[in-house]
Amino acid sequence: MTTQDFTTVSAATTVSNASAASAVTTASAVTTVPAYAAPAAHAPLERTTVPRRPVGDHDVLIEIVYAGICHSDIHQVRDGWDEGIYPMVPGHEIAGVVAATGGAVTRFAVGDRVGVGCLVDSCRTCDDCRAGREQYCTASVPTYNGRDKEGEPTYGGYSTHVVVDESFTVRIPDGLALDAAAPLLCAGVTLYSPLVHWKAGPGKRVAIVGLGGLGHMGVKIAHALGAEVTVLSQSLRKQEDGLRMGADHYYATADEKTFEELAGSFDLIVSTVSAPLPMGRYLGLLATDGVMVNVGAPEEPVGLNLFDLLAGRRTLAGSMIGGIAETQEMLDFCARHGIVAEVEVIRAEQINEAYERVLAGDVRFRFVIDAATI
Amino acid sequence: MTTQDFTTVSAATTVSNASAASAVTTASAVTTVPAYAAPAAHAPLERTTVPRRPVGDHDVLIEIVYAGICHSDIHQVRDGWDEGIYPMVPGHEIAGVVAATGGAVTRFAVGDRVGVGCLVDSCRTCDDCRAGREQYCTASVPTYNGRDKEGEPTYGGYSTHVVVDESFTVRIPDGLALDAAAPLLCAGVTLYSPLVHWKAGPGKRVAIVGLGGLGHMGVKIAHALGAEVTVLSQSLRKQEDGLRMGADHYYATADEKTFEELAGSFDLIVSTVSAPLPMGRYLGLLATDGVMVNVGAPEEPVGLNLFDLLAGRRTLAGSMIGGIAETQEMLDFCARHGIVAEVEVIRAEQINEAYERVLAGDVRFRFVIDAATI
Repeated sequence: MTTQDFTTVSAATTVSNASAASAVTTASAVTTVPAYAAPAAHAPLERTTVPRRPVGDHDVLIEIVYAGICHSDIHQVRDGWDEGIYPMVPGHEIAGVVAATGGAVTRFAVGDRVGVGCLVDSCRTCDDCRAGREQYCTASVPTYNGRDKEGEPTYGGYSTHVVVDESFTVRIPDGLALDAAAPLLCAGVTLYSPLVHWKAGPGKRVAIVGLGGLGHMGVKIAHALGAEVTVLSQSLRKQEDGLRMGADHYYATADEKTFEELAGSFDLIVSTVSAPLPMGRYLGLLATDGVMVNVGAPEEPVGLNLFDLLAGRRTLAGSMIGGIAETQEMLDFCARHGIVAEVEVIRAEQINEAYERVLAGDVRFRFVIDAATI
Repeated sequence: MTTQDFTTVSAATTVSNASAASAVTTASAVTTVPAYAAPAAHAPLERTTVPRRPVGDHDVLIEIVYAGICHSDIHQVRDGWDEGIYPMVPGHEIAGVVAATGGAVTRFAVGDRVGVGCLVDSCRTCDDCRAGREQYCTASVPTYNGRDKEGEPTYGGYSTHVVVDESFTVRIPDGLALDAAAPLLCAGVTLYSPLVHWKAGPGKRVAIVGLGGLGHMGVKIAHALGAEVTVLSQSLRKQEDGLRMGADHYYATADEKTFEELAGSFDLIVSTVSAPLPMGRYLGLLATDGVMVNVGAPEEPVGLNLFDLLAGRRTLAGSMIGGIAETQEMLDFCARHGIVAEVEVIRAEQINEAYERVLAGDVRFRFVIDAATI
């Protein structure tokens, strides 16, 4: 289905908003669009259709061009975190083109290159929302596997179209290819946000744990921010990639000597792994006042000896994606520095196979679904 | 034994330092002084004598007047943390009067009211030492249960005299009574340091977990810093005390409703308890970007679900006593605000009984040993 199809489908209910400067075509009825969904927990994804709401005054209709496959998609499809809502259409790394705009939309026009990340709404009134930290609003609406303010399930980016409030839509700068930009919407901002918050920059010694979809964004962004970047990966298998992306050093964590040699040598560690790490060993790598930030989270609790925090006034923190304005800031930063994700574009029918490859660590560095194949 | 005794003992080897502006009496030989020591792990403390080094050029001889009993004294006597050095003379909350000074001492004179905390030396060259964070120097020398640079065991404040480098000696302002000031040297700075580091002050909502020797200092200091202070204590038993000390609110953590009612309501939580807490429940009390700092540390690891940190970009940190200049700053702050510890002065022969009472929570709020009874 193309945008033309969508507008054809919605043509029967086209309305124009007379109060808008220029009338635009909007759909006033629910439309169904093709998507890949997991019909139940642990079930493989299959082609189906899902409803999209009418394009409201503040909405944009996005023709999805690419959607990244995030590790958390697999978690959620397999119901690792919480009670999943099925059928589940994953995908919160959406890159596409505006196909229609609601009458009150001011920031986007048909044809604009846009992205949608992990959130499609929030309460907009709490301290977090007012501070641009929508990701910490407890009433935020996830792009999929959530419910919108009307209580309807949200469906993500493994689909041909999505309708999103313009306030939760960001602009993808022209310099960034849509396929390689898609993963910036989650992986990119998930690393950008803590790196900026904890002031990665010149003179700062930053370690990135794990060189996967998240980690490779961390290396590129931390390097562009001017920090001295070390990759801590299980093996040296991806060392050449890491150094090419901007890492200054690369160590294997399977090697016992790594933890001795690097003791006390980082100001900031960002862990992207979702397996439980031996926290004491990693905290021992921090200098005084050093911070270890987790952006990945294992499902089981980790054991923590609080003495490891007392020594050196160390800090263990968490960070979760980023705010909407911050996501735009990240995209603009990436455009200025020529940063994109390294991606392998797949056809939609390869999604289940791609999930297995992600779990096996066999991806360099992010799968992106070509939405034209859905 | 009095100061007079000490100087008499050392008179046979008195030297004068001709290069000093005024010659002073120093002891060039090791002297023995009365002390209370644990002869072995888990053994009760008993009266004995321990050696004190000669008063070197940069040393002050301190006649100890009071020594506080810190919970960590009990831990260490009972060998809870590490291999103890026995006989062990605990005591790192020392308040006394200068009885003699080395020839190169410039900051103190005989008769000055002084204190010694948890450290009596450090490497003095590392980044931490140069930044006034001697407590994080990995070569720092603890006041007791450590070894000095000559490899000799250090003996703490449950004694009549101690010889300390003037660089690790602080001045106790005149406004502070020596008995009530003694606990400031550890308990006071242990709370002052994280409260200042994490910016407790007007507009900040601060919770102090536990209203014991550490916690009651936290309430007084956080209140004086201008923060809104809440005590989280197991029961409401000490509520009246807490409110009198400056707490604005007081909640019982045994009451399930406390954690619901206070969810997301603190910018800073300082936990003074050394029992393992259910971390998730306490982290849930933090607002976005809130920090939970541990100054107490259980011997066993705690379980931590990293999701509890990701949500709200929360931080779990540790803090350990304070630096030397910071300890002086804390004493001056306490003098300006009329802050002292609330103490019960005991005779030396009551130390073992006092230990049992500390473990039973039966102390309001710090035992202090009258060194004249040693």
